[in-house]
Amino acid sequence: MKSLHRPDLYGWSYFNPARNIDFNGVAWIRPGGNILIDPVALSNHDWNHLESLGGVAWIVLTNSDHTRSAQEIANQTYAKIAAPVGEKDNFPIHCDRWLVDGEEVVPGLKVIELQGSKTPGELALLLEETTLITGDLVRAHKAGTLTILPNEKLLNREQAVASVHKLAQLAQVETVLVGDGWSVFRDGRDRLKELVATL
Amino acid sequence: MKSLHRPDLYGWSYFNPARNIDFNGVAWIRPGGNILIDPVALSNHDWNHLESLGGVAWIVLTNSDHTRSAQEIANQTYAKIAAPVGEKDNFPIHCDRWLVDGEEVVPGLKVIELQGSKTPGELALLLEETTLITGDLVRAHKAGTLTILPNEKLLNREQAVASVHKLAQLAQVETVLVGDGWSVFRDGRDRLKELVATL
Repeated sequence: MKSLHRPDLYGWSYFNPARNIDFNGVAWIRPGGNILIDPVALSNHDWNHLESLGGVAWIVLTNSDHTRSAQEIANQTYAKIAAPVGEKDNFPIHCDRWLVDGEEVVPGLKVIELQGSKTPGELALLLEETTLITGDLVRAHKAGTLTILPNEKLLNREQAVASVHKLAQLAQVETVLVGDGWSVFRDGRDRLKELVATL
Repeated sequence: MKSLHRPDLYGWSYFNPARNIDFNGVAWIRPGGNILIDPVALSNHDWNHLESLGGVAWIVLTNSDHTRSAQEIANQTYAKIAAPVGEKDNFPIHCDRWLVDGEEVVPGLKVIELQGSKTPGELALLLEETTLITGDLVRAHKAGTLTILPNEKLLNREQAVASVHKLAQLAQVETVLVGDGWSVFRDGRDRLKELVATL
């Protein structure tokens, strides 16, 4: 796994040839048990790396289109899976916990529910106020510039735009780690405000 | 290949497990013949993608430690290879052209010779004043923050630092594409100035 912008955060990616972008997983290494977010497949090397950092306690999925390798990783570890409460009735894999807007997955990792995206109640996660982690709605196909899903993928564009506005109002976001495409590591709030201006 | 910050630039990467960073290649797609810089191995998918964009005319290598897949790509195409004149006498593969400080590889792609790095006269490239492409000296292991090679890798630290100062004085750099690690897509000049302040 690759070091991100903080020593306790790692990322790894799987190139998607259909879209010519990377799909990204995030690992937060923490004393109370490590957390993976939207994990793509781990190579043997990255698996060993993760094990050397303490394995995994929780897998958090932002939406049902990002289950990726979650089930396989959970099957091979004691990891539990958490997912959006908005998809409770139709989630494709077993989940141990349903996450609700405003709660914390663990201390420091806040749940933000988005509306109108590809799936009901897609989640974003805010790590210690400064690192925003997005699933599908906010993404980046062009490096250095955030975008959102195209209209035809949205359940409700007006709600989706309102949700992005909510993200852009977060006061201290420096980094935006996207599930799909190019993450932004500096001045994330400025990039979110630029995004809002295009919607 | 992945779209970078301009529609005529693409990047692709090869994860290096020894260092837990990506090694990156860059492709500039242009009417007069496409240019690859420090190309790592291309997957079949990326090879087809590159062919669909017009193949490759020139491969530019910033230093002899970044030959990577250049020879294989040249063997399978009509691509010619250009490399730093500072390594003319000892370059490990055949080169068709030796690049000199201040000249242009092709119009818009300027050669900058650095001193004191791991190899004599390592090159950086400046694309249309706004995109700086570095080989080994300037790199990023921590996302969002540029660094340089450790002292023990440098031929001459004083000269290397002076070369980085020269890069930080480039007036219009918005993007820094690094050969090793995390590229910076916005406010590149600020990141270079921050780097200089740490040296």
